[in-house]
Amino acid sequence: MLVVMKNNASEEQINAVSDYIKKLGFSSQSVPGIQRTNICVLGNKSRVDSSVLEVLDGVQEVIHVSKPYKLVSREGKDSSRVTVGQCVFGSDFIPVIAGPCSIEDREKFLDIADILKEMGASVLRGGAFKPRTSPYAFQGLGEEGLKILAEARERTGLPVCTEVMNTDDVDIVSEYADIMQIGARNMHNFSLLKKVGRKNRAILLKRGFAATISDFLMAAEYIVSEGNWDVILCERGIRTFEPDTRFTLDISVVPIIHEYSHLPIIIDPSHAIGRWNAVAPLSRAAIAVGADGLSIEVHQKPLEAFSDGAQSLKPAKFEAMMSEIRTIATAIGRSA
Amino acid sequence: MLVVMKNNASEEQINAVSDYIKKLGFSSQSVPGIQRTNICVLGNKSRVDSSVLEVLDGVQEVIHVSKPYKLVSREGKDSSRVTVGQCVFGSDFIPVIAGPCSIEDREKFLDIADILKEMGASVLRGGAFKPRTSPYAFQGLGEEGLKILAEARERTGLPVCTEVMNTDDVDIVSEYADIMQIGARNMHNFSLLKKVGRKNRAILLKRGFAATISDFLMAAEYIVSEGNWDVILCERGIRTFEPDTRFTLDISVVPIIHEYSHLPIIIDPSHAIGRWNAVAPLSRAAIAVGADGLSIEVHQKPLEAFSDGAQSLKPAKFEAMMSEIRTIATAIGRSA
Amino acid sequence: MLVVMKNNASEEQINAVSDYIKKLGFSSQSVPGIQRTNICVLGNKSRVDSSVLEVLDGVQEVIHVSKPYKLVSREGKDSSRVTVGQCVFGSDFIPVIAGPCSIEDREKFLDIADILKEMGASVLRGGAFKPRTSPYAFQGLGEEGLKILAEARERTGLPVCTEVMNTDDVDIVSEYADIMQIGARNMHNFSLLKKVGRKNRAILLKRGFAATISDFLMAAEYIVSEGNWDVILCERGIRTFEPDTRFTLDISVVPIIHEYSHLPIIIDPSHAIGRWNAVAPLSRAAIAVGADGLSIEVHQKPLEAFSDGAQSLKPAKFEAMMSEIRTIATAIGRSA
Amino acid sequence: MLVVMKNNASEEQINAVSDYIKKLGFSSQSVPGIQRTNICVLGNKSRVDSSVLEVLDGVQEVIHVSKPYKLVSREGKDSSRVTVGQCVFGSDFIPVIAGPCSIEDREKFLDIADILKEMGASVLRGGAFKPRTSPYAFQGLGEEGLKILAEARERTGLPVCTEVMNTDDVDIVSEYADIMQIGARNMHNFSLLKKVGRKNRAILLKRGFAATISDFLMAAEYIVSEGNWDVILCERGIRTFEPDTRFTLDISVVPIIHEYSHLPIIIDPSHAIGRWNAVAPLSRAAIAVGADGLSIEVHQKPLEAFSDGAQSLKPAKFEAMMSEIRTIATAIGRSA
Repeated sequence: MLVVMKNNASEEQINAVSDYIKKLGFSSQSVPGIQRTNICVLGNKSRVDSSVLEVLDGVQEVIHVSKPYKLVSREGKDSSRVTVGQCVFGSDFIPVIAGPCSIEDREKFLDIADILKEMGASVLRGGAFKPRTSPYAFQGLGEEGLKILAEARERTGLPVCTEVMNTDDVDIVSEYADIMQIGARNMHNFSLLKKVGRKNRAILLKRGFAATISDFLMAAEYIVSEGNWDVILCERGIRTFEPDTRFTLDISVVPIIHEYSHLPIIIDPSHAIGRWNAVAPLSRAAIAVGADGLSIEVHQKPLEAFSDGAQSLKPAKFEAMMSEIRTIATAIGRSA
Repeated sequence: MLVVMKNNASEEQINAVSDYIKKLGFSSQSVPGIQRTNICVLGNKSRVDSSVLEVLDGVQEVIHVSKPYKLVSREGKDSSRVTVGQCVFGSDFIPVIAGPCSIEDREKFLDIADILKEMGASVLRGGAFKPRTSPYAFQGLGEEGLKILAEARERTGLPVCTEVMNTDDVDIVSEYADIMQIGARNMHNFSLLKKVGRKNRAILLKRGFAATISDFLMAAEYIVSEGNWDVILCERGIRTFEPDTRFTLDISVVPIIHEYSHLPIIIDPSHAIGRWNAVAPLSRAAIAVGADGLSIEVHQKPLEAFSDGAQSLKPAKFEAMMSEIRTIATAIGRSA
Repeated sequence: MLVVMKNNASEEQINAVSDYIKKLGFSSQSVPGIQRTNICVLGNKSRVDSSVLEVLDGVQEVIHVSKPYKLVSREGKDSSRVTVGQCVFGSDFIPVIAGPCSIEDREKFLDIADILKEMGASVLRGGAFKPRTSPYAFQGLGEEGLKILAEARERTGLPVCTEVMNTDDVDIVSEYADIMQIGARNMHNFSLLKKVGRKNRAILLKRGFAATISDFLMAAEYIVSEGNWDVILCERGIRTFEPDTRFTLDISVVPIIHEYSHLPIIIDPSHAIGRWNAVAPLSRAAIAVGADGLSIEVHQKPLEAFSDGAQSLKPAKFEAMMSEIRTIATAIGRSA
Repeated sequence: MLVVMKNNASEEQINAVSDYIKKLGFSSQSVPGIQRTNICVLGNKSRVDSSVLEVLDGVQEVIHVSKPYKLVSREGKDSSRVTVGQCVFGSDFIPVIAGPCSIEDREKFLDIADILKEMGASVLRGGAFKPRTSPYAFQGLGEEGLKILAEARERTGLPVCTEVMNTDDVDIVSEYADIMQIGARNMHNFSLLKKVGRKNRAILLKRGFAATISDFLMAAEYIVSEGNWDVILCERGIRTFEPDTRFTLDISVVPIIHEYSHLPIIIDPSHAIGRWNAVAPLSRAAIAVGADGLSIEVHQKPLEAFSDGAQSLKPAKFEAMMSEIRTIATAIGRSA
């Protein structure tokens, strides 16, 4: 059970609620966030009568939860909308995040940014800090990359999304990015989750490739429990025994997450499948299943890309894909 | 490399081809089927000049293949169409196979058959022989079930599909069924694959839940190598670490299989997800990704079903789903 | 709950027990075997008082079970011993089953049989019917292979173990083999499990490579429920995301199975790891963890083997391995 | 290919080697560490003649590698030994790391430390910063925990091992710990790997639960490429479909890692299996397969543990386990 305190609840009120919970024979844990503090009631085996708590001073509401995640749980909540500039995740319009895997060069990035804007992308993406399996692989341009990203935003008016890899970089990335991406390999990096949870920036949280749905929502809970509710979930494939695809896109998580949580969820087919010629069919499937957005890798010359070339679409293919998903979106009463 | 012999090739001609292959320094293996014999050329490390073989008597064509599967390989072939009664798998029209998990009772089955016909199902399904994890679970009505199935076909004019579980039952099931289903647990039952490969019946081959795409196509190759080309592939979920879904629907196999093989592939979302409320979104995704059909479990009273109740749609939900997938089919230029 | 009837219980007594169970408000299912009939009590949500059933005529004992498997469950049972000739699985002595993957040739097989007997193998193995992923791969010598196997038994005095792949072959394989092996790809072939459950032969049941421990024990339950209690379980690796080993040997199942079931369990490291140079360390681990036996592939000239050459030990390596496992067996108070 | 420079190689010498590599038509990447710089030769498709490089000034040796990891590769290297106080990982003696999951309280920890020392543990473990799936679970005592750890070291003379969760904490943890542990959920946290690679402390690197062997060794390569060669690998189970064990212990990695890499590898059976009664058999198996150490969770009162109680051994069980593994160690010519 979770006691949501009012924004302006005083420390005394919070302590009083905690004490009351202990008197009931349970333990309590307070979860301080930027805007408000919430108090978890722990140790209750069965449903606790919430009315006694609801009347205490400073309490806004009491939420009954049986899942381990509480704040991100669907229970009794409407779907959340995460607004980034003019773009809203979780509405009928389905935004597409697009761009190259890495920002490799200023001119090339500004060029692709113009193209993607023209073709209807809603958000620009590009990696400045790159998590690479090999220490000898291209690690990104760092802050220089962030500056290029900001320049592209200026030019196109589109919000930008880029990955933050560690706690040290959270401040600088949050200065430049509209959406900070937590990569799949960092989904369990709880220190990083907490730190971005204290920033006033939308977070794109990618599912770890061996994370269960429950793990995934608990990672989101880490962010939200710090006070940042602007979390967009992203499915990008899980690891299975199948060698012919890079990862296995677990498309079923979209209806499941929509049942369990109020957060919007988007799909990244490029990283999942690892081959460009299956990106369009999977994008159509993502829209049809009800995803709230897409993240697509696009590169002018995929074969020359520093990373992930095999899965990147050329602009012309991206344009064709946009047209296909618009038709599907219309068929299900949404737009893209 | 595979040498496809003419239907009427004589044994002498076949032997002559085999001898010639050995003279070239390779080994050969003949693959006798009902209608024709094919000869595999084994042991060649690189491409063999096929012109010398093409001119031999009785040879129809020579196929270059690099994958372990040969006959089911896409190389140089158009997409296959599998025709069952009035229904064609692999065409622009997308057939839906529907029915309860098991045939439990004559009256109930005839009733649901009428309903499904009315709602636009193309093929009726129902298990007479059931593979159950527990020896103490309901094992199906056996031949009595097959007779009920045949009666439903008479009544509705729709072709029927049912599972065959072992070599002993192939003859009897083939008497009643238009499509014989090989279940996921039998995909590696090579004796069964060979036996149905010698029958003049369409085969619905479900992917084993730990089978790679390559294993899956090799299982189809077993059937086709016996002479039966009427194989419909069916993805029904693979086993992964995720506990919140019964299996993980591997939707990416649709574009991959279409790239690798000429065989049609359909999707069974009911068994994959194991919960009825996600069946419709996954069906939409299946159509959007390009699947050539669906297999859906429908039951009048899911809670009373002898098996798989949790994943069965009620008729009204099925009707709504049919309407949704027709809209998606139209959006991609097909019909359902 | 399971009611175990006496060997000589009459049909009337069995019916009387079933009727009584129904009177209690539960349903009953009788499980006829060769030697005795057992009756499952189904539909009970909580523990049923068994004393009322224990006093009925013909009842031997009543077993309380909560797991889906009943007859193979450990509850209240001592460890089973499966005796094959002079060899006992489940005792302090740890038998080693050894031989080539396939029987390729009479002379070679008799030669390796002599060598293995000399080196201390307890059971000879060799495939006559081979389940192969490709229809074009060597499929075994069939009955000719079985005859060679029988000749090797005559010569060495060792019992022999070989795979049976389908219901049609059960009769002929049971004529020649002391232990009939059900391969991993057939673990879910329920028709085959039932048929070997009606034979008076020990069964080596290999775990399907995507079977949970519960599935594995349910497959054993299928065999035992037909009356054949001589089941030896065999772990041979499961499918995971790891590409550097052929399968992942799930060594933890040994203590888990020993906790859940009374059946003996052995380990096949050769198929799991797929490379000969890791077979000896894994065999040592298998003995140390408490396995009741090993199954090891040995071939005079692995590079020339028709199948599984990469994982086969040469005789000299096998001899060294036997010496290593004997030391480990002694260290844990057993022998090999 | 990797060019290992001498410790005292000058920048000019390093640049000269890089230039030479470029003249040969390849690209080069220098990998600066604390003690030395190495230079990777990239872009070579086939074996490069190394003799021309070996004669350049400042070059110590040239290593041919085909795997993506270079510095941690076995090629041509003896097994590494990692020395921590009096304890050596990678020698004939097999050290056991033992302690509770978390440091919960000063008195309790000092008490268990005394007990473990008495029973023959070589290293004390205990978490001060805990990575927890839930933000509401006990997160560790933080620096207070580190101080308790240091006090236990003083008292017992045993080195101590504790987890570091993020780059911010590396400095403080390295002040107190003899071995810094990188947890499974951080194995892909490349920023953290690099930072601990610049510290003069032994690193216990746990395998990510969905990391391939190649990923695992690449993570070690990140640490070593920064100059810290004192890396101990630790297998702790991978995620598979099996629900009856917490993770699947992948014991086969021990011989595989010993073949691929010179680094020592230990096993943590407690986290893998998640149930205390299987820890001793798996520990025996770990020693038998050739592991270079163990990490075992021990708690005075497992049922009262703040975390991981189900898998913790009571001291008496730990003592029995130590006795069992010593017998196995002796059997394979080592000691514990």
